[in-house]
Amino acid sequence: MAKVQPRTLSGFMELLPEQQIKMERMMEVLRESYSVYGFAPLDTPIIESAEVLLAKGGGETEKQIYRFMKGDSDLALRFDLTVPLAKFVAGHYSELCFPFRRYQIGKVYRGERAQRGRFREFYQADIDIIGDGKLDIINEAEIPAIIYNTFTKLGITKFKIKVNNRKILNGFYAMNGMSDKAGDIMRTVDKLDKIGPHKVKQLLIEEVRMLPCKTENVLDFMAICGTNEEVIERLEMYRGMDETFDQGLEELKTVTKYLKAFGVPEENFAIDLTIARGLDYYTGTVYETEMTEHPEIGSVCSGGRYDNLAEYYTDKQLPGVGISIGLTRLFYVLNEQGLLNDEMVSSPCDALVLPMGEEMGFSIAVATTFRKAGIRTQIYGEKKKFKQKMSYADKLKVPYAVLIGEDEEAAGLVSVKNMASGEQLKLSPEDAAAHIAAGIAEKNSLSVIKE
Amino acid sequence: MAKVQPRTLSGFMELLPEQQIKMERMMEVLRESYSVYGFAPLDTPIIESAEVLLAKGGGETEKQIYRFMKGDSDLALRFDLTVPLAKFVAGHYSELCFPFRRYQIGKVYRGERAQRGRFREFYQADIDIIGDGKLDIINEAEIPAIIYNTFTKLGITKFKIKVNNRKILNGFYAMNGMSDKAGDIMRTVDKLDKIGPHKVKQLLIEEVRMLPCKTENVLDFMAICGTNEEVIERLEMYRGMDETFDQGLEELKTVTKYLKAFGVPEENFAIDLTIARGLDYYTGTVYETEMTEHPEIGSVCSGGRYDNLAEYYTDKQLPGVGISIGLTRLFYVLNEQGLLNDEMVSSPCDALVLPMGEEMGFSIAVATTFRKAGIRTQIYGEKKKFKQKMSYADKLKVPYAVLIGEDEEAAGLVSVKNMASGEQLKLSPEDAAAHIAAGIAEKNSLSVIKE
Repeated sequence: MAKVQPRTLSGFMELLPEQQIKMERMMEVLRESYSVYGFAPLDTPIIESAEVLLAKGGGETEKQIYRFMKGDSDLALRFDLTVPLAKFVAGHYSELCFPFRRYQIGKVYRGERAQRGRFREFYQADIDIIGDGKLDIINEAEIPAIIYNTFTKLGITKFKIKVNNRKILNGFYAMNGMSDKAGDIMRTVDKLDKIGPHKVKQLLIEEVRMLPCKTENVLDFMAICGTNEEVIERLEMYRGMDETFDQGLEELKTVTKYLKAFGVPEENFAIDLTIARGLDYYTGTVYETEMTEHPEIGSVCSGGRYDNLAEYYTDKQLPGVGISIGLTRLFYVLNEQGLLNDEMVSSPCDALVLPMGEEMGFSIAVATTFRKAGIRTQIYGEKKKFKQKMSYADKLKVPYAVLIGEDEEAAGLVSVKNMASGEQLKLSPEDAAAHIAAGIAEKNSLSVIKE
Repeated sequence: MAKVQPRTLSGFMELLPEQQIKMERMMEVLRESYSVYGFAPLDTPIIESAEVLLAKGGGETEKQIYRFMKGDSDLALRFDLTVPLAKFVAGHYSELCFPFRRYQIGKVYRGERAQRGRFREFYQADIDIIGDGKLDIINEAEIPAIIYNTFTKLGITKFKIKVNNRKILNGFYAMNGMSDKAGDIMRTVDKLDKIGPHKVKQLLIEEVRMLPCKTENVLDFMAICGTNEEVIERLEMYRGMDETFDQGLEELKTVTKYLKAFGVPEENFAIDLTIARGLDYYTGTVYETEMTEHPEIGSVCSGGRYDNLAEYYTDKQLPGVGISIGLTRLFYVLNEQGLLNDEMVSSPCDALVLPMGEEMGFSIAVATTFRKAGIRTQIYGEKKKFKQKMSYADKLKVPYAVLIGEDEEAAGLVSVKNMASGEQLKLSPEDAAAHIAAGIAEKNSLSVIKE
């Protein structure tokens, strides 16, 4: 029979077990971390009516969208988790409690040009808090705490949550009479990190067509740095010149003030006036998160405050604040950089029971004891030679092999071999379970990411 | 602005938070239960090349498949998790350890005619064990243990795993010279439960065109029942007449023999000769699982042994055994029948912190203490009246409201209100955390399904 090549589409991540176990661990940390802040899980369809999904118009992404007909239905695959959230909240408005806090970890689809590290199917892991008409600033202050907690649990310690407020930027541009050019300026200033202040100044003069003295104002402003206290002190000097600016500054101060109570250490948080996060959507606090020793990765968690989640579906004013982690890309980069922890258990089982004889009853009973103790246990039941059995255990990278020969069975014991150290102990099934469980618990205390 | 109606496509399940939390709990039980038996998680793309996905030909389901062009690519959405598994195993043959045990919980797509309780996007939760060339019978014996453990953890106690062996059926038909009619006979016998033996006999004579005496043989055979021991004793009488039958009987005896060691109680397991599970794919042990007080639901977990997983992709002989739970449909039916446990915590948070004054610092510190103790905590930060705050707590069905007024803050205490009992205690934040954690742990010991 002619065979079809079992290929996977390019741009679609498909992991081998060892890697997938690490990915699952990351997802579990995200679920736990989001849940502990009181976010409800949400699961929306991957397919939506194209009319609903593209209500806003797809803009830049429209060409990338997977859109097709099924019978008479014009359908599309979701390209983010925000549009489905807007649809959900607008559609279930009367059934939800506001503020409505939801997390969603799900696949989204964008038919981008295939290239290394770019994915057409990828997980996003989002949280959003949606208010009904109003939403208190405390929600914006809480977001850095959630980011801090999540990344710490993943095992990342060297990261910085950078925060800014769009009102400060908009106010600053207004007080300088540059509101009409604000978009172009922000886009140019965004290149500071990459091309430096000298080139940015040049671009501001030549392309944005600003007066040189005004570019100085902008660059001076963007160069404000120091501790959060110092930055705020410098910003205070601009107070009184623009109402929006003053409001943004108050918000930024509130966000900063509550950080300590939320348990975010000063070193993981920085006010950064260069952060702008796109142009239209965000209206208040904005966030980016950088792994400080890997700035080349870019922001690993971004988001901000917006005023109107679902204007294409409802007249209700639904302000919100949210962040998103591009999980598939993050996993890919961490893996490429060798930052995924190889010391954690990445075998599909903790213990591999190897019956040496034909009769399996005792081996099965041992496995049952282990499983009741929560140990992920596989019985290797194939009739193979000892060497082949041990080679399977090696290839599987199982932490413990449990050998059961006739001698062991007669004595009601098992031989537990620690595959890493080579140490081998004869124990009762119950003692073996306790011994293995303790070893595994120690390994499971490790984090999935190791800097 | 004209609004687009925020509708969700028919046949696509989208749950409100309270229900989604129950669904997530079910998925968590499945992940845990599958993992404890040493299955590795697998996550394959939802989109595949149509050529790959339809290598076998879609048969009956081909019309239901979501298939579309994107640029020059002929694509399709997966309609089950078995074809992607076959593709994965064939494509990664040299990188996997055999037997390869994987679980996958994922969405699949079938554009069936929309009707109540039928879904076009639905979760399947599959496990499979794939051998390289051979696969020992012990793997078939282990499957009922996995089903038993999974359903028990979900909270179902009244269920029966029905087991048969295709070799016994094929052997029986061969010894009666009815092999050529085996398919038609099995399809007819499958209706026994619905239409009874009298009508089945009539159909066998009129439609399958069997001699009346032979229909008696079939019905006598299908009527064999009793304890597993009794059924096997009856089957022993047919031994020696057909090699395939004898082999099937040996396999069935082995599966049954190991049940006790695997911890499956006799009352949750039954040999049932009427189980056939389709026609071509399965070749040995077959399984169905019935909720004994809800036979109208049909089988909630089915599967069996097959000889060749990936013949369309590779020449390698890859026998396997697997089962599948139609999770979305199961959830839907359990929900309809009121079998989902309302006593478990289905609020997105365990504790809702309600600051009574303007200053939030202490409330935030309390929430941070709770979260460190693993309590899912939300701070209600909106400036609303007390009544509105309590009404939010009610609507959210949160188990504990934590009131923090000026008096409490001055004393460094919080008022913890048990929303179900009305009991209210003034405690330190640490004692409050311990009190709430204990209450929640008790509720979380409940199962998601309550018969």
